[in-house]
Amino acid sequence: MPQFLSTTDADFETRFEALLHMKREDAPDVDAVVAEIIADVRARGDDAVIDLTAKFDRLTLTPEALRISDAEIAQAAAQVSPEDRAALELAAERIRAYHARQMPEDARWTDASGATLGWRWGPVDAAGLYVPGGLASYPSSVLMNAIPARVAGVSRLVMCVPSPDGVLNPLVLLAAQIAGVTEIYRIGGAQAVAAMAYGTQTIAPVDKITGPGNAFVAAAKRRVFGKVGIDMIAGPSEILVIADRDNDPDWIAVDLLSQAEHDESAQSILLTDDAAFGRAVAEAVEARLETLERRAIAGPSWRDFGAVVTTRDLDEAATLSDRLAPEHLELAVADPDALADKITHAGAIFLGQWTPEAIGDYIGGPNHVLPTARSARFSSGLSVMDFLKRTTLARMTPESLRAIGPAAVRLATSESLEAHGLSVQARLGRLNSDETA
Amino acid sequence: MPQFLSTTDADFETRFEALLHMKREDAPDVDAVVAEIIADVRARGDDAVIDLTAKFDRLTLTPEALRISDAEIAQAAAQVSPEDRAALELAAERIRAYHARQMPEDARWTDASGATLGWRWGPVDAAGLYVPGGLASYPSSVLMNAIPARVAGVSRLVMCVPSPDGVLNPLVLLAAQIAGVTEIYRIGGAQAVAAMAYGTQTIAPVDKITGPGNAFVAAAKRRVFGKVGIDMIAGPSEILVIADRDNDPDWIAVDLLSQAEHDESAQSILLTDDAAFGRAVAEAVEARLETLERRAIAGPSWRDFGAVVTTRDLDEAATLSDRLAPEHLELAVADPDALADKITHAGAIFLGQWTPEAIGDYIGGPNHVLPTARSARFSSGLSVMDFLKRTTLARMTPESLRAIGPAAVRLATSESLEAHGLSVQARLGRLNSDETA
Repeated sequence: MPQFLSTTDADFETRFEALLHMKREDAPDVDAVVAEIIADVRARGDDAVIDLTAKFDRLTLTPEALRISDAEIAQAAAQVSPEDRAALELAAERIRAYHARQMPEDARWTDASGATLGWRWGPVDAAGLYVPGGLASYPSSVLMNAIPARVAGVSRLVMCVPSPDGVLNPLVLLAAQIAGVTEIYRIGGAQAVAAMAYGTQTIAPVDKITGPGNAFVAAAKRRVFGKVGIDMIAGPSEILVIADRDNDPDWIAVDLLSQAEHDESAQSILLTDDAAFGRAVAEAVEARLETLERRAIAGPSWRDFGAVVTTRDLDEAATLSDRLAPEHLELAVADPDALADKITHAGAIFLGQWTPEAIGDYIGGPNHVLPTARSARFSSGLSVMDFLKRTTLARMTPESLRAIGPAAVRLATSESLEAHGLSVQARLGRLNSDETA
Repeated sequence: MPQFLSTTDADFETRFEALLHMKREDAPDVDAVVAEIIADVRARGDDAVIDLTAKFDRLTLTPEALRISDAEIAQAAAQVSPEDRAALELAAERIRAYHARQMPEDARWTDASGATLGWRWGPVDAAGLYVPGGLASYPSSVLMNAIPARVAGVSRLVMCVPSPDGVLNPLVLLAAQIAGVTEIYRIGGAQAVAAMAYGTQTIAPVDKITGPGNAFVAAAKRRVFGKVGIDMIAGPSEILVIADRDNDPDWIAVDLLSQAEHDESAQSILLTDDAAFGRAVAEAVEARLETLERRAIAGPSWRDFGAVVTTRDLDEAATLSDRLAPEHLELAVADPDALADKITHAGAIFLGQWTPEAIGDYIGGPNHVLPTARSARFSSGLSVMDFLKRTTLARMTPESLRAIGPAAVRLATSESLEAHGLSVQARLGRLNSDETA
């Protein structure tokens, strides 16, 4: 059973604070190992990647075999059922349509002083997408990472996916093909991140690395940050559901389990203004757990980190939700838009009881790479913006420099940066002498 | 004298690669010390901050004295000359006007399936701005960091500025007042970053920390990243000027020196299609260096890291510029807009010979916090976006769920995430039974 809390309990604040600060992840400290792997890949390139792949993935490669050939991708894609392919294609189309709307606009204007100002956006030249192997090798994540990059206009899109014992997921390769990935390498771990960041003889470096991964991948991304851009260091998944009594307890139960089944460290929380409904949902969760395929994962997650919180009303639930700043927030209430207006911090909001969070994982259109561990307070899900950068533009005329230049000289002087001031003064001096002449 | 290169030299590629990968910064490894400082502030709060301030800034404080009072700010502001105040106010007004145009729009639409999709933006609740003390305590940086936060709608804006031996820069306090900073603390270093990230008894925690700082501040920002958002880890300043022969060599010389004077590790590079013009600029730099106030900084920067590169034509200069991906790029050529169209990677572009880079440092309007060390390949300068986060929105109707839900179930099954599929199926089941009934 999960925790049951009520905002009317005397010890509520203490228990809710404990829930907020619960340490769910016991990430092993692999930083020293990762530092060695990165140094090795930087020093020895392909040879290091090949040695590390033999060691970690039990797979013997040559430089030529690092890259997965087009023929191999086509062969894998051909194994996928037409139904699975159609589902992937529908998902890709919807994700593409949503992200296309995120493209920001360039701007340019002339102000009262005559100065022309503005900015323009452009894609990174090359992006690298990390895809885990094994159990968490999800084709949906390939779509969610690769499509925003392609929509942004990234021309070179590299993917690394480990192939432990030579096994690859055909759906992952098909998803990469559908999403427009241009190169795929059968490598993983910190060595794949290092190869994408620094390059090897076979793998040209990229500018930005995104995608989920284990503790080694996360530590490697943190280390190469600065040399390349990274998306985020994601923690275990979370769902918060705010539901009133007018819901089927079983629907809410499976929604809570849809995150609990990801990971024993995942966290599923229900906030409801009806204590009896909360108990009914908890009972429905137990019933579903009896047969759920991944009950060995979802069960511990729900028992250790799950919670059912009864609030005085929905406004109070909105306030608590903001303190949790959830990755995923479902509003299964009569007027979800009104409640959403009271929420400030959430990665993604799913409005109304016909919108299970899983729709957002696959097919809704918005990205499923979202801020975890309360970072929705200050960060956003993956978007086309992650694959774009902005260049600001400024153009002075002699008149605009005459209008605003003296203030720049004044500020430069106050900061004791003489050459800054001189660079303006030299030009202003010419304007003055031209006038005198 | 700086390096002279020409793209027609046999060893050009080798020397240009060396220029690209020049290690300019020898940042001391302070990570272990910083880890201790952060742990101390987390454990002891105000007491730790007070002890560390006594140690590093030779300043004895009480918890009550950590915050700079409104009276003290008013008193400092009153010391500033009317001319300096007017210059700061003009800069603030122009920075505000530029950044106001960056505010992104919310979006919401209904697609063909009947699903309502969209996103909305909101500010972080609280931002923290670090301002260095001593030599690099720049009022312009206060404006450049604080104004985008206020434009984004951040209501609580904290500033930390160390006051070594009790000394504070009145212009920095006035700039904070003009920019709308709501709390100022007289603390610095890793302890200030830790206090803003984790909070103390006196200082409530913030959600995002921005601003420049020394190696301790940079290491602390890297460590608290994840707990809070950070802007970037900035390296030493850089300027790249592309100039044709129709320029006054002295103007270009002072432009190059305006970055060289920041830091001995700063880098100033000239690309020109005229070798004689390049030599004339180098001579003008030497002439200016004889009297420049900060020649002890600008001289070593120019000699150790400066370069004059002669190219065959301006197109070749644009190609080399993209390999450098400069923080600041001046295009002092006849048609700067045409040349800008050939540039892909730059933090900020200054168009035409009437636009010295220093205008952008103070008064142009665009932000002067820009990506260094070739990170303009994948990142952008500071903007209102750094103080905003996006929440994605999705709302299904029964009809839209019927249209796209089966594909989600299919993908969930292919990923062995049964509960994901069940959360959709439970709802589809109801729709089917409603129809049957």
